[in-house]
Amino acid sequence: MIMKAKIAVLEGFKKPLVIKHFDIPPLPQGSILVKMVASGICGSDLHMVDGEDPRVPLPIILGHEGVGEIVEINGEKKDLNGDTLKKGDLIIWDRGVVCGECYFCKVLKTPYLCENRKIYGINRSFKDYPYLTGAYAEYIILEKKTEILKLSSKTDPTVLVMAGCSGATAVHAIDSLEDNLLDKTVVVQGGGPLGIFALALSKFQGAKNTILITGSSFRKEIAEKIGVDVVLDRTILKEEERINKILDMTYGKGADVVIEATGTNKAIPEGLRILRKGGTYIVVGVASPQEKVPVDFYDVSSKNITIKGVWVSDAEHFKKAVSFLEKNQDLFAPVVTHKISLDEINHGLDLVRERKAGKVVIEKF
Amino acid sequence: MIMKAKIAVLEGFKKPLVIKHFDIPPLPQGSILVKMVASGICGSDLHMVDGEDPRVPLPIILGHEGVGEIVEINGEKKDLNGDTLKKGDLIIWDRGVVCGECYFCKVLKTPYLCENRKIYGINRSFKDYPYLTGAYAEYIILEKKTEILKLSSKTDPTVLVMAGCSGATAVHAIDSLEDNLLDKTVVVQGGGPLGIFALALSKFQGAKNTILITGSSFRKEIAEKIGVDVVLDRTILKEEERINKILDMTYGKGADVVIEATGTNKAIPEGLRILRKGGTYIVVGVASPQEKVPVDFYDVSSKNITIKGVWVSDAEHFKKAVSFLEKNQDLFAPVVTHKISLDEINHGLDLVRERKAGKVVIEKF
Amino acid sequence: MIMKAKIAVLEGFKKPLVIKHFDIPPLPQGSILVKMVASGICGSDLHMVDGEDPRVPLPIILGHEGVGEIVEINGEKKDLNGDTLKKGDLIIWDRGVVCGECYFCKVLKTPYLCENRKIYGINRSFKDYPYLTGAYAEYIILEKKTEILKLSSKTDPTVLVMAGCSGATAVHAIDSLEDNLLDKTVVVQGGGPLGIFALALSKFQGAKNTILITGSSFRKEIAEKIGVDVVLDRTILKEEERINKILDMTYGKGADVVIEATGTNKAIPEGLRILRKGGTYIVVGVASPQEKVPVDFYDVSSKNITIKGVWVSDAEHFKKAVSFLEKNQDLFAPVVTHKISLDEINHGLDLVRERKAGKVVIEKF
Amino acid sequence: MIMKAKIAVLEGFKKPLVIKHFDIPPLPQGSILVKMVASGICGSDLHMVDGEDPRVPLPIILGHEGVGEIVEINGEKKDLNGDTLKKGDLIIWDRGVVCGECYFCKVLKTPYLCENRKIYGINRSFKDYPYLTGAYAEYIILEKKTEILKLSSKTDPTVLVMAGCSGATAVHAIDSLEDNLLDKTVVVQGGGPLGIFALALSKFQGAKNTILITGSSFRKEIAEKIGVDVVLDRTILKEEERINKILDMTYGKGADVVIEATGTNKAIPEGLRILRKGGTYIVVGVASPQEKVPVDFYDVSSKNITIKGVWVSDAEHFKKAVSFLEKNQDLFAPVVTHKISLDEINHGLDLVRERKAGKVVIEKF
Repeated sequence: MIMKAKIAVLEGFKKPLVIKHFDIPPLPQGSILVKMVASGICGSDLHMVDGEDPRVPLPIILGHEGVGEIVEINGEKKDLNGDTLKKGDLIIWDRGVVCGECYFCKVLKTPYLCENRKIYGINRSFKDYPYLTGAYAEYIILEKKTEILKLSSKTDPTVLVMAGCSGATAVHAIDSLEDNLLDKTVVVQGGGPLGIFALALSKFQGAKNTILITGSSFRKEIAEKIGVDVVLDRTILKEEERINKILDMTYGKGADVVIEATGTNKAIPEGLRILRKGGTYIVVGVASPQEKVPVDFYDVSSKNITIKGVWVSDAEHFKKAVSFLEKNQDLFAPVVTHKISLDEINHGLDLVRERKAGKVVIEKF
Repeated sequence: MIMKAKIAVLEGFKKPLVIKHFDIPPLPQGSILVKMVASGICGSDLHMVDGEDPRVPLPIILGHEGVGEIVEINGEKKDLNGDTLKKGDLIIWDRGVVCGECYFCKVLKTPYLCENRKIYGINRSFKDYPYLTGAYAEYIILEKKTEILKLSSKTDPTVLVMAGCSGATAVHAIDSLEDNLLDKTVVVQGGGPLGIFALALSKFQGAKNTILITGSSFRKEIAEKIGVDVVLDRTILKEEERINKILDMTYGKGADVVIEATGTNKAIPEGLRILRKGGTYIVVGVASPQEKVPVDFYDVSSKNITIKGVWVSDAEHFKKAVSFLEKNQDLFAPVVTHKISLDEINHGLDLVRERKAGKVVIEKF
Repeated sequence: MIMKAKIAVLEGFKKPLVIKHFDIPPLPQGSILVKMVASGICGSDLHMVDGEDPRVPLPIILGHEGVGEIVEINGEKKDLNGDTLKKGDLIIWDRGVVCGECYFCKVLKTPYLCENRKIYGINRSFKDYPYLTGAYAEYIILEKKTEILKLSSKTDPTVLVMAGCSGATAVHAIDSLEDNLLDKTVVVQGGGPLGIFALALSKFQGAKNTILITGSSFRKEIAEKIGVDVVLDRTILKEEERINKILDMTYGKGADVVIEATGTNKAIPEGLRILRKGGTYIVVGVASPQEKVPVDFYDVSSKNITIKGVWVSDAEHFKKAVSFLEKNQDLFAPVVTHKISLDEINHGLDLVRERKAGKVVIEKF
Repeated sequence: MIMKAKIAVLEGFKKPLVIKHFDIPPLPQGSILVKMVASGICGSDLHMVDGEDPRVPLPIILGHEGVGEIVEINGEKKDLNGDTLKKGDLIIWDRGVVCGECYFCKVLKTPYLCENRKIYGINRSFKDYPYLTGAYAEYIILEKKTEILKLSSKTDPTVLVMAGCSGATAVHAIDSLEDNLLDKTVVVQGGGPLGIFALALSKFQGAKNTILITGSSFRKEIAEKIGVDVVLDRTILKEEERINKILDMTYGKGADVVIEATGTNKAIPEGLRILRKGGTYIVVGVASPQEKVPVDFYDVSSKNITIKGVWVSDAEHFKKAVSFLEKNQDLFAPVVTHKISLDEINHGLDLVRERKAGKVVIEKF
């Protein structure tokens, strides 16, 4: 008997996703059929729908964050802890599948830069076998090389889903710091899931002050629930006032670490001003090409600052994000503000587009 | 009018401290007269009383952890944040005063290894001007080069006092790790203030599992209040059982980090066994010469492990410890199990000797 | 037509290798048939012949360092630089083949600790297809996952062969240092190929003083040709004299870095004494279980030293070693003291056993 | 009897220095009177003469690189190795004198960012006692806190002089790299003394390829004498050609490390293009505010690159630079292209301004 999967397909850029029913194909050797339990909407999905992300082929099943239950395994497969996977296991997986052979994988040990990285729901066409390669669907097929973690039955899949993309990327940002954050002041620009996760991690690296700069009162509330020390509202405070607040909190020195999680070059000049001499600026949100911003590199050299670009994530970051979320589920629960069904996917995308949501998660398929 | 200070003096090894009253001498240029508000008893004080620490001259006013109030400043002095200090300020200070000129201070930037390090209450004789150089006294005189931090009036001095020695040393231990602790398992051997502080810091470096090995049910309770995940009681579990518990929690791999905070070489072999391949062993508790322990360095090379000796602390560690304690006072409050008066100092030392105390703090002088 | 390969087989421990001729089997999918051009004898081979290395099955073709020419590729294969390999290419390969899937490979990014590491000439039985898995043979078959580097036709294979084991392991040792070696004093204990390579690398990390401790006048000469600054001869100078020499060169402080490359625990106590406060001790030579040595960890904690065990190597270390050797062939040429034929393999092993050789290389098969 | 010192004074911006004779004042407590033996002209001196450096007061004795002989010590003083200094010693000193007390000195251990850093020949007015605080003079007075190194009598002062500024700054640049340079490709933009020193250091960190981009055939020659692997001449090769050359040398990946040593923002866009994914860009040459350059930080995030601003140097860098130069004097000798007398100082400045010199050194006073 052939099983059917309900799927949401993007057939043309800037068009609504279309709900369809599709025959589940035979499983490739080594791959796993997973029934989706939770699927997260990521801000980057909007760029993909709009045709602004050059990686995306058409047609495609989007969705790169997911938690699901194993229906079938064609072969044997272990998770990242070495546990053998079996039917019925609740699992989460890394959206990126890397080759493990290229210079970046093997020699530099930076698989997030793998030259052959495939990404569920991002650069895999719905035309190509085994077709079901995005998380906005009732079923997904995970290929052999996918990095998987078994989840405890106690975990809330709608919270855990964040670990797959924004969580893992935030861990990558924090991991790229050279020192721990004891006694340090961390400013995060942008209060979406990436920024919120970065703030929570900063607290759990021992930061003295965690500060969010946002223009959204909605996100301000989420940040406060997460325990952020100070929120600076861009709609109330001018740039000079924001900077003065930060200088006041740091004996006139500025922030030790600034994390850009806004997605726009426009945040950079303020970030550079906020930073103290010798500080570190993590640029992790800017994820698409855009208008250049003018910089005097004398501000970089004379302040002896470090700017670190951070791109996506790998198995290490993914595993840490899952572990951190599992341990702190209650903390992150308020970030999930909307739970919807797959049929409502286009509404879900609109919620994210209007920045009136924390995390929107599909939990009915 | 000459002011008098009540002091407790060690006049002979293995003898009780003697309470006296002593004329406060004129302040040297640049120094500060401080009225003690809280003074902590450290486990190492017992070695000093017993004559096992070769650094200690006689007679001496012991006590190297303190919080106090500024009575007088002979000159001008800023704290480590650049704040100008003034009469009435509540302050804490680093027990070590470094030269800032030697190879270790200047070139290697490891002032904790300073060749000319002077330590309040440890290597400064009561015979030498300005005499009042230990914290077991009503007043202490801090010399010009002392590293000081002004405390908020909201801080509880009896809790903050820990930052001066065990706290700063625990920070040094954690700072010496090359990576953060996200998803990591940390085992601490020994549940005295140093071990407790290391466990709390590990939680705030994002550790997945924090585990204490102790033989004291008293300390087990404190650890649980601090939020330690697992306590392995040496009086109940044998070494093999303890190791198996840790292997069970780590998919058979062992601990990522082990921190020795027992003070004895006897803990080393178990520590090496507990550690996973590629793990890090911090040896921070062993503070006096003792009987050697046999090691096969094949266990070090073939497991590719790192052993880091950690000695005392410096301004960076001290400042981080104070910051961390100020932010987490409630967490640490249960560690202070006894508050006594200076007159009861010998009783306080006994409490520590019998391991029936968390932190014993003098709060009346 | 079936081709024959001349091979040297270890059939029983402590027995001479036996020269045979063996039918080359059909190539497994993805694998490469290589005609050996040079094959190095490693000190560890002696432990294997003697049955002291528990990894070694019988019968076995030993030999884990090699350079050869590609005869046939069953499929397509790229080298670590991304170059597509083809018939006739001169290549070198990493002796270890890792799984790329386990926790150590994927999450910790320490493939040298891979739980499924297979090693040519060490843990692969001659009984198992494809049989030709050691370098003491006319031909070797490299499996699909082998990490390979194409060599320039200008390279001298007899020199390059060192990169495969001692070179890569020495790079691992140097890479594990946290700082560069500018202005630093490095002492290497033991002047075999591993020690010599570590000394050469130390020079090219900018070390101020490179010092070898050896008991072999033969190796002393090689070290001097390599440009080592000072050789301390154990047969002439007593331990106290050696230590005093090093103190004299370091303003009384001791060595910044000590590298154990002797293979014995007996070197450890002197190494710990030589090291300055805050220094780093790399233990890389101890490669088999042996009698324990007594240590007081107060010497580790109070000197705040770091001890790093270093085990084997991975693709990164291997690639760096090849690159370094290619750039400095003239420097390393004197290390190759004997070039022999495969028929003379037992004589070659004797030369190494008697420590009367630098590197012994098979160049006729 | 009052001794006179010949000095060169800048009395007005954009005016020639004026040679004068000046009474040597009484030595402050702890300070040292030094007779200059060699004094280097730094490219930054031109900005100071032209009034473009806001740190410079008028009138001033410029000159911040020097080697000299001790004439008199008012007190006792040790060098950075702990050697007691005495009359007749040949010494070199760090141009910066730091407070050792501020947050940057004490807590962050980044004294190069000291808030109270005084610099001989840069921010010390000729009006202020003890007046003789620049190296363009027959005598200089070094204050008590100056960091000093005794030189061997075998050193060539005209070569060593480079260690004081460009050498120490280049070491700071190299020290700020997180990994060693084995198998790495390093591109330096700009072939002045700073760039040349960075190239030499890169070789001695094991770099596989060292590449200089310069527009000066004069500097090209010096670079080749230093042993740089490839020089790309900006007057011959267009930007695309230069980039293609570098891609050809790196299997299409780009440089691992790029070091900006040109002094201008204009070099930044090419530097960012040259860099491979995951690479590090050191910006060390830009030393004065200038016109901004447009950057798309998507190039920083999506390539996951690190940009490190590097500002001046401290005792650690200075000591390493001196050590490296002492060990490699012959290598650096060709960099010193002109030796002049103090009377010719204005001619010397012109030589540097016209970029027709390597290092210009004053050796007669």
